[in-house]
Amino acid sequence: MRMTEFFMPILRENPAEAQIVSHRLMLRAGMVRQAAAGIYSWLPMGLRVMDNIAAIVREEQNATGAQEVLMPTIQSADLWIESGRYEDYGKEMLRITDRHERPMLYGPTNEELITDIFRTSVKSYRQLPRNLYHIQWKFRDEVRPRFGVMRGREFLMKDNYSFDLDFEGGKRSYNKMFVAYLRTFARMGLKAIPMEAESGPIGGDMSHEFLILAETGESQVYCHRDLIEFDPNEAALDYSGDLQPIVDRWTSLYAATDEQHDAARFEAEVPADKRVEARGIEVGHIFHFGTKYSKPLGALVTGPDGEQVPVEMGSYGIGVSRLVGGIIEASHDDDGIIWPESVAPFRVGLINLKAGDGACDAVCEDLYAKLRGAGIEVLYDDTDERAGGKFATMDLIGLPWQLVVGPRGVKDGTVEVKRRLDGERVTLSAEDALGRVQG
Amino acid sequence: MRMTEFFMPILRENPAEAQIVSHRLMLRAGMVRQAAAGIYSWLPMGLRVMDNIAAIVREEQNATGAQEVLMPTIQSADLWIESGRYEDYGKEMLRITDRHERPMLYGPTNEELITDIFRTSVKSYRQLPRNLYHIQWKFRDEVRPRFGVMRGREFLMKDNYSFDLDFEGGKRSYNKMFVAYLRTFARMGLKAIPMEAESGPIGGDMSHEFLILAETGESQVYCHRDLIEFDPNEAALDYSGDLQPIVDRWTSLYAATDEQHDAARFEAEVPADKRVEARGIEVGHIFHFGTKYSKPLGALVTGPDGEQVPVEMGSYGIGVSRLVGGIIEASHDDDGIIWPESVAPFRVGLINLKAGDGACDAVCEDLYAKLRGAGIEVLYDDTDERAGGKFATMDLIGLPWQLVVGPRGVKDGTVEVKRRLDGERVTLSAEDALGRVQG
Repeated sequence: MRMTEFFMPILRENPAEAQIVSHRLMLRAGMVRQAAAGIYSWLPMGLRVMDNIAAIVREEQNATGAQEVLMPTIQSADLWIESGRYEDYGKEMLRITDRHERPMLYGPTNEELITDIFRTSVKSYRQLPRNLYHIQWKFRDEVRPRFGVMRGREFLMKDNYSFDLDFEGGKRSYNKMFVAYLRTFARMGLKAIPMEAESGPIGGDMSHEFLILAETGESQVYCHRDLIEFDPNEAALDYSGDLQPIVDRWTSLYAATDEQHDAARFEAEVPADKRVEARGIEVGHIFHFGTKYSKPLGALVTGPDGEQVPVEMGSYGIGVSRLVGGIIEASHDDDGIIWPESVAPFRVGLINLKAGDGACDAVCEDLYAKLRGAGIEVLYDDTDERAGGKFATMDLIGLPWQLVVGPRGVKDGTVEVKRRLDGERVTLSAEDALGRVQG
Repeated sequence: MRMTEFFMPILRENPAEAQIVSHRLMLRAGMVRQAAAGIYSWLPMGLRVMDNIAAIVREEQNATGAQEVLMPTIQSADLWIESGRYEDYGKEMLRITDRHERPMLYGPTNEELITDIFRTSVKSYRQLPRNLYHIQWKFRDEVRPRFGVMRGREFLMKDNYSFDLDFEGGKRSYNKMFVAYLRTFARMGLKAIPMEAESGPIGGDMSHEFLILAETGESQVYCHRDLIEFDPNEAALDYSGDLQPIVDRWTSLYAATDEQHDAARFEAEVPADKRVEARGIEVGHIFHFGTKYSKPLGALVTGPDGEQVPVEMGSYGIGVSRLVGGIIEASHDDDGIIWPESVAPFRVGLINLKAGDGACDAVCEDLYAKLRGAGIEVLYDDTDERAGGKFATMDLIGLPWQLVVGPRGVKDGTVEVKRRLDGERVTLSAEDALGRVQG
């Protein structure tokens, strides 16, 4: 993509309304634009990142055997009345009346609707286990939306729902998601730590939050330092095998958010030099809640003995739009964003220091064509801005690799390669530079 | 995907509520499930098709230079009050009041919001032309939602918006979309005919609807027969070149829907043997409306002469979820759906006539692995249903190719290949069968 054509309305100044770094950088880098309080339009740069995140989530979900569906945003209130949550949910639920005066709502979550799909489709234990997910916009009418996409009102979430015959099956489904979440966040360059959690309005008797550590995190967290060093990538992961040992390893050490924190237990279980107190950002939450919805909604299956039993359920959420902000909170410096390669909007930024100069243009066009030919996403700064402005913009938007082409280098047949992560610069031939950014 | 694992709740009986064939077949094939009146959940089979359609739309939009963004579903009423449409839009607009009693709405279209993004980002004619699109859920509170996804309330639409300095630029942007639409629908196996249209609540002075012909179409259409034979694939299409000749070719012959039909002109312009009167389904609609929104919303750019002028705009819609139904209306038979290869949920259906038989299982597993290895989407019927049921299901769901493996063929080393489109069957070696379905 040529920068002269790319719709990327950069802000030179820090926007006054942004209190946290991810909000500030997303506005400055032209990733989002506020449409209303807590509601954002995603501009091309932001959408590219969100799509990359969603793709990783989707791949890791599919790897577990979960299948993708897509439930609507607007739901009838009927099912929520049936489950008993319609009154409970409070003012965070956006309630709507349609033209026929029927009560509707913008789904803040989908336990009721998926249970309805299940109860009309699945009748026998032989059709279990079943895990269905979707990636869809949700709405929670926060009283004070803030922090940009980190606590917006309309947000994109992956939520899925597991259905099993009994508790043991439910535990297996829970474990699959537990492990899939570790892998999902690791692929985004994040170190997410599972912590015991309250289940809140979803309900349930087993629940973990996944938090990433960041100075600006919304929650105070307490954990054993070894958790931060654990490698979330299991050598030969088999989702049909027993995942309990993996889950046990991660849950054997102390990790809790503020609400669940037990200072006495923390001190008893964790040696002083291993105690971590830090700030965290929630990026995922998993619940096992058994028959909380299947009972009132009558989602029954016939078991092997011919008896009808309510199905065991769990639900599992990842905040997809929130992760865009979360990754920035965890990965930035004073100059701007530092995108992990897996989610970067473009892998390479190509800077032409003298656009309009025949020799520089020729080298840049050649690199641009070769990168594209190799299937590498590249943003080519072909504008006539000053060099200082170009460097600042490229650092701000945080692409992992920068290729800098200027008159002096062109004369010597060289290109400068800068790695955004650590600022390392090397001067290479064009060919070697291409090899380097291709990794 | 193995059918024993795939979530595909087939209905054996015709659902009573479905009045048209696409609605009936989508329910029977387990593609969608109604969540509320005019609101659907998309199950895996339906979502796969909708994703394939969206991918084609996206590719063809990107080819024109349009860039993807994503605006939210919920909008503030403020912008609509500013444009003057808030009162005009009537009861089809889903109006919402948030917890702070602010008037919001579920966007039925996005002219106001995109104009707001534009006016705060683009200031000079040098940043034009600009074309931004998104693929997002919309809501129109139809008084009588019906015909399944063909006239739902919550629907997925691709809408984009062009911004140009003057009318001539606007015309070029309009022509790009005109040509892109012809290509887009052709790739889905559809013959879409552009017809002069009224612009309705969007407003404007130049507008075409794209209709596909189907017996069950909602509109009466009148056109010159030659339009049906025109090839929408231009040999060497260059979007930066002059597209007017292509547009002229398609608009030189009579084509009109009911509302615009002029019987006298039809008879004068079209020879009797070339007159087609048929039913049509609208799948796209394009508008040029000049400064209708840029003036009231103050979307001004500085022209080459330093004067500030309101930007010229157009908008362009494709009904993505509606197309799923539209393609079925145009492509089915008494046995079920006939998917064009480009949008099929799976390319191949592999039928094991004797699941559990060692020899049949071995041949099927081998074919299944080889197809997947070749990157071909395959649905493997590994259930223990009777042969008749398997054939009926495979015809119902309409995958382009069927591979049938039975004990007799296995003994002879052969597989039956059936093409769903014309029912043609050939008996081939496993290797040749693979070659045939790979196309």
